[in-house]
Amino acid sequence: MGGFYMKKLWQKNNGKLNPTVEAFETKGDLALDQKLIIFDVLGTLAHAQMLKKIGILSKKEFYEAKKGLFEIQKLIQSGKFLLEMGDEDMHTKIENYLTENYGEVGKKIHTGRSRNDQVLTAIRLYSKDMLITIQKNIHTLIKTFKAFGKKYGDIPMPGYTHMQKAMPSTVSLWAESFIESLQDDLTVLQTAHVLNDQSPLGSAAGYGTTLPLDRAYTAKLLGFAKVQKNPLYCQNSRGKIDALIIGALIQILLTLNKFASDVLLFTTSEFDFFEVSDKVTTGSSLMPQKKNLDVAELLRSKVHLILGNYTQVISVSSNLISGYNRDMQDTKKPLIESLEIVLESVGVANILLQNIAPNKDVLRKAMGSELFAVDKAFSLVKKGIPFRDAYREVKNANKN
Amino acid sequence: MGGFYMKKLWQKNNGKLNPTVEAFETKGDLALDQKLIIFDVLGTLAHAQMLKKIGILSKKEFYEAKKGLFEIQKLIQSGKFLLEMGDEDMHTKIENYLTENYGEVGKKIHTGRSRNDQVLTAIRLYSKDMLITIQKNIHTLIKTFKAFGKKYGDIPMPGYTHMQKAMPSTVSLWAESFIESLQDDLTVLQTAHVLNDQSPLGSAAGYGTTLPLDRAYTAKLLGFAKVQKNPLYCQNSRGKIDALIIGALIQILLTLNKFASDVLLFTTSEFDFFEVSDKVTTGSSLMPQKKNLDVAELLRSKVHLILGNYTQVISVSSNLISGYNRDMQDTKKPLIESLEIVLESVGVANILLQNIAPNKDVLRKAMGSELFAVDKAFSLVKKGIPFRDAYREVKNANKN
Amino acid sequence: MGGFYMKKLWQKNNGKLNPTVEAFETKGDLALDQKLIIFDVLGTLAHAQMLKKIGILSKKEFYEAKKGLFEIQKLIQSGKFLLEMGDEDMHTKIENYLTENYGEVGKKIHTGRSRNDQVLTAIRLYSKDMLITIQKNIHTLIKTFKAFGKKYGDIPMPGYTHMQKAMPSTVSLWAESFIESLQDDLTVLQTAHVLNDQSPLGSAAGYGTTLPLDRAYTAKLLGFAKVQKNPLYCQNSRGKIDALIIGALIQILLTLNKFASDVLLFTTSEFDFFEVSDKVTTGSSLMPQKKNLDVAELLRSKVHLILGNYTQVISVSSNLISGYNRDMQDTKKPLIESLEIVLESVGVANILLQNIAPNKDVLRKAMGSELFAVDKAFSLVKKGIPFRDAYREVKNANKN
Amino acid sequence: MGGFYMKKLWQKNNGKLNPTVEAFETKGDLALDQKLIIFDVLGTLAHAQMLKKIGILSKKEFYEAKKGLFEIQKLIQSGKFLLEMGDEDMHTKIENYLTENYGEVGKKIHTGRSRNDQVLTAIRLYSKDMLITIQKNIHTLIKTFKAFGKKYGDIPMPGYTHMQKAMPSTVSLWAESFIESLQDDLTVLQTAHVLNDQSPLGSAAGYGTTLPLDRAYTAKLLGFAKVQKNPLYCQNSRGKIDALIIGALIQILLTLNKFASDVLLFTTSEFDFFEVSDKVTTGSSLMPQKKNLDVAELLRSKVHLILGNYTQVISVSSNLISGYNRDMQDTKKPLIESLEIVLESVGVANILLQNIAPNKDVLRKAMGSELFAVDKAFSLVKKGIPFRDAYREVKNANKN
Repeated sequence: MGGFYMKKLWQKNNGKLNPTVEAFETKGDLALDQKLIIFDVLGTLAHAQMLKKIGILSKKEFYEAKKGLFEIQKLIQSGKFLLEMGDEDMHTKIENYLTENYGEVGKKIHTGRSRNDQVLTAIRLYSKDMLITIQKNIHTLIKTFKAFGKKYGDIPMPGYTHMQKAMPSTVSLWAESFIESLQDDLTVLQTAHVLNDQSPLGSAAGYGTTLPLDRAYTAKLLGFAKVQKNPLYCQNSRGKIDALIIGALIQILLTLNKFASDVLLFTTSEFDFFEVSDKVTTGSSLMPQKKNLDVAELLRSKVHLILGNYTQVISVSSNLISGYNRDMQDTKKPLIESLEIVLESVGVANILLQNIAPNKDVLRKAMGSELFAVDKAFSLVKKGIPFRDAYREVKNANKN
Repeated sequence: MGGFYMKKLWQKNNGKLNPTVEAFETKGDLALDQKLIIFDVLGTLAHAQMLKKIGILSKKEFYEAKKGLFEIQKLIQSGKFLLEMGDEDMHTKIENYLTENYGEVGKKIHTGRSRNDQVLTAIRLYSKDMLITIQKNIHTLIKTFKAFGKKYGDIPMPGYTHMQKAMPSTVSLWAESFIESLQDDLTVLQTAHVLNDQSPLGSAAGYGTTLPLDRAYTAKLLGFAKVQKNPLYCQNSRGKIDALIIGALIQILLTLNKFASDVLLFTTSEFDFFEVSDKVTTGSSLMPQKKNLDVAELLRSKVHLILGNYTQVISVSSNLISGYNRDMQDTKKPLIESLEIVLESVGVANILLQNIAPNKDVLRKAMGSELFAVDKAFSLVKKGIPFRDAYREVKNANKN
Repeated sequence: MGGFYMKKLWQKNNGKLNPTVEAFETKGDLALDQKLIIFDVLGTLAHAQMLKKIGILSKKEFYEAKKGLFEIQKLIQSGKFLLEMGDEDMHTKIENYLTENYGEVGKKIHTGRSRNDQVLTAIRLYSKDMLITIQKNIHTLIKTFKAFGKKYGDIPMPGYTHMQKAMPSTVSLWAESFIESLQDDLTVLQTAHVLNDQSPLGSAAGYGTTLPLDRAYTAKLLGFAKVQKNPLYCQNSRGKIDALIIGALIQILLTLNKFASDVLLFTTSEFDFFEVSDKVTTGSSLMPQKKNLDVAELLRSKVHLILGNYTQVISVSSNLISGYNRDMQDTKKPLIESLEIVLESVGVANILLQNIAPNKDVLRKAMGSELFAVDKAFSLVKKGIPFRDAYREVKNANKN
Repeated sequence: MGGFYMKKLWQKNNGKLNPTVEAFETKGDLALDQKLIIFDVLGTLAHAQMLKKIGILSKKEFYEAKKGLFEIQKLIQSGKFLLEMGDEDMHTKIENYLTENYGEVGKKIHTGRSRNDQVLTAIRLYSKDMLITIQKNIHTLIKTFKAFGKKYGDIPMPGYTHMQKAMPSTVSLWAESFIESLQDDLTVLQTAHVLNDQSPLGSAAGYGTTLPLDRAYTAKLLGFAKVQKNPLYCQNSRGKIDALIIGALIQILLTLNKFASDVLLFTTSEFDFFEVSDKVTTGSSLMPQKKNLDVAELLRSKVHLILGNYTQVISVSSNLISGYNRDMQDTKKPLIESLEIVLESVGVANILLQNIAPNKDVLRKAMGSELFAVDKAFSLVKKGIPFRDAYREVKNANKN
């Protein structure tokens, strides 16, 4: 049995698909599948084990499938299982490998599955993996903020409203604001994690199958917290869960955007509140004297990128009828990119924080008397003067 | 003591602000404040009670404040406490009323507060109120879907992928997909609720105060689940929590968008899967024969609107330094509108669902044999033929 | 003939439409129609004149229609022609008025029209009016920038890259950058204007009519530059032209966002490059000393708002089949709001600019020697030293 | 003089930049630079020729630079000039190549340039090249629509509003709507082209230089229509022109989205208006009978992707002060991707159109009498009955 018929299994008419159309449909997608394929192998393994349990694969066939899938896993890890134009997608490539190397079991592996539930399973596993890593890294960043607050906490710092000096504050108040922000972000991330942690495997094309698939079993094997029950909802939830994850990531990047915006202002020569290590600054090609904090600028820009990704996912996913629509392929990239951007950004924010330090003297000098106007008003309040009268008294005194 | 000096309390220089600039800053905002003001009254009441507790207001002063605030509440409810150009904002209008009618206590009521924490408090209370109502209405919609599924559940229905007939399905499978979707939406909404349910009151301008404000006490009086601790984070969380709420609302509207998209396709004369009651259709000004399902079209469009609102909130809120920036005023509208849109949409979806019914006969006829191709393949699988071979066998048979 | 049957002409079944559904469909829309109705009157007048020309209205009937429409115009201008729930929309209200007051002609006025082309016509006329006004105001703003540049042009100013001092610059270079930006914006606006300036009137529901309507004639009467030929494209172009206009407006607000961002940084006490008049600053409710530039903050936020509006229009308009879909009603608000926001913002930017002035002394002191590092390198270049060597020489000198 | 000091020329402190930070700053960017580098070579060549003209490069040096740049061009074309981590960016790699191979001239090539104007120049040239190609391809697509309309034009087709049959139409009316749409798109694209066609070269870091650079000369050499005068505006226009281009591309994809949406509905088995060739359909992995029009789904999704890209560009670019900010690096990807997506999509739409054909018989049968209700009303109008009365007469007749 030659491999010739297997390539592009789902192709109608022996592959007469227009090559430009084929490239349009698959070229970019293959690069994304390369990031997901290790999880597709896991999903396939769980599916095979379940097929054995319900009697569709023999013990021997399952053993062969397992062996083949482990081989694929190793090939992936050593960079030798590369998806190329003509491979259609990761699912076909895996099935082809098994059929070519182990015969019958390859032709049985897709029993009761559709690429619709298969890709969903791989994406969920990939997202789960990324979300857990991001959570860990946020904990690290929180620790760094705690250490920063502890080290420099007693240093005074002007508090700003409307970009103008407003009230006395401290370095620790500033640092702690990010800690509380990140803690809220973790709560949001957890909800995205919970909804993502549902197994779509066994929902097939979106309408289940007449085969006695054991969905709870595959869910358990893959470590999913629960089965996503309604097979149509499995498909319909795709863009929704993608968006939920990106929305949670946006929260994190909003926190980092604030941090970067503060750092960029506070490190201008005019403010000069923070000292920055050379380990995080870059120079200019033209101006010999420059020392730029590019890393903070590129950190600042990231929330905007994944806001665009969010827009893509919602906009692609809507005005579509129930069930799988190929449009959904175009939500892969914004999801994967967003997870990668956030993973990288949290790490970089941590490095940036470790490489800045308050300029104690500058900060002390910056604590001008105007910052204490409210305190003066409150002193009057404590003497029994109504706040609004005290406010006007201080305001008038200020004028002169 | 004349009221003349009180108007626009925070105005510099006796109100010389350019009137065009003043209109730009406040005109649109006053209409939004009108929706929030009842909650600002509540926040003010709690603040007053706390000021009494810590000895800044006397028992009598608190009694007067309470009386005045109840009067304002009644005026609001009867539509007689209307914000107008020149009122600056709701906070000033309330303070002015108290000062004009009760003297000293009015001038004391702002002690230890800033409009920054005051508006945050009102927004949180407003959002909480809306979120709870939306949650209730989703439960109602779930019930209607359950009733719909129960009533028509055994009716067969083609399942679609790529907008093409794919697999046999049922009306109940379709209905249940929305139930599971809405249940996930409730989980997401709950997280938004939890983060929103933190009291910012007492954080003042974003840097706390030197007064011994009892923040736990006002939080408890207002029914907040907890105090939002870091005063700077109170301010910095504003756009974040707005976005979180809108993101949760987007999830709901994605569910309703899918529902509306299905209904619109399934009620074309070409599909004719659902019968629609005249109670939800509208006619054409030109074409006498038309019977349009405008309500479903306007339901379908809503997710796009609040996606735009989400974009506004994130984009307005980023690249800003820590602390209050007036830009944040422009997040009020997208937040309030999104909550109102979703509240209305959930109710309308419920009415729509109550006014459609499956066309049993049409649906039965639509169950063409092509839908059972997979089942045929699975029959062969049960006889021991590998799935991929069975698939090809059925495909070839189909061709002829 | 009583008016009872006329209300909601297009309503099926004598108005049995569910009232919640009716409110959902029309409530918000009526407020927008109130802004468009004066243009709908104009469109109706042109249509009537054309109906007379092709013999469908008699001379007398046209005279009555004209009289009635002028009455409506006056009522609108004096605020007495208010759309209310139950009016369905502006088109029906106008037709009803004519029928009630002039009988037959009212019943003939809709001949050969659909609300689909009618609303499009009104929107185009409204947009045209606003675009022309905005263009005028931009010319005014350019003049103010020119005057500013002329007045303060020779004052030096540091040029920034990466928010760090980079190169010597001047106030006039800064001012002129906005002039060139606004000139490009005018070019973009002009294209939006050209595409908007096409008459959709006579395209009826999107498929033309069998009546011999003279579309060129109504186009001419209404001052449109050309007829938009294909009737289906008239409908399909709706969201596209809305988006094009908003996209052009975004360009303007990007220019103003840059201006506001600069002004906000340059007026911090740390930079102190610009002096600001009290006519454009506001105070704080809590902090007696504050003088905030809220107007610049609210100017800065506006581009984000209409970015959201743009998202709404594109996202609402896509994944819809050809021809009118009621979803399009939801593009009215983002379009109208965007035009209003930009009109207001350009005016406010002009006021802001008139109320700031460079702090000459501060700016001179800010011209530190580091700004001239490139010039030093270029002096070496002029002596024949390769630039890269000169660069390193200056850099090394800087270090010591 | 070894090459060791040249790598990362602008690096402070002998390359101590944290490697994670370095990867964050450059990794993704290098892949994009690979697409732009050929244009950077052109920009460098023009700059060198100008440096010769103004006497900074000798004739011999210019000859060497030219020779080196041609070598680089060939290396790029044969895929052998690959940017890698450690190369910093394309500008540095080119300068390093020249210095290593031709000595002094390499060290002089950056005279009077900054990477800020250099990258802008490369992006503008790249965009110009893409825009021209896209314009050509749109002309091809228009031709195909014309041929389609000519071939099938007389075939009747129901016209839809609200997704319901509304009025009689034809295949040619449908085809022509896309032609007129694409013609408008070309107008919009032309404006984007005009604004993009301005030379930023010579604006250096955004503040010009003290060297007598001949900007008109380089503009002419590079084929730019004009010089972009104000050097600060050169930088400030970056995001604006990116957004303008993407906005123009969105117009095109809105046209294609409408086309794809129509085709997807009209090729459902329920409508069956169009026949589709196997050259553009794909099958299902699970369902042997399926023949899906994935290409139209993926065409439909594209406008959403570049809407997200647009959001990225606007959101990244705003709330930044004048002058270069590194954030702008993150607008490269959305711009390049959008141009590539549209180039590909126009081509694919052309193929799709060539592979569909109307089902004449089905379309004829679909022309039910309900489509002619307006015509009936108009016949009554021609007999002198007022339209609204005729409308009601037909409506009542329809009911029975």
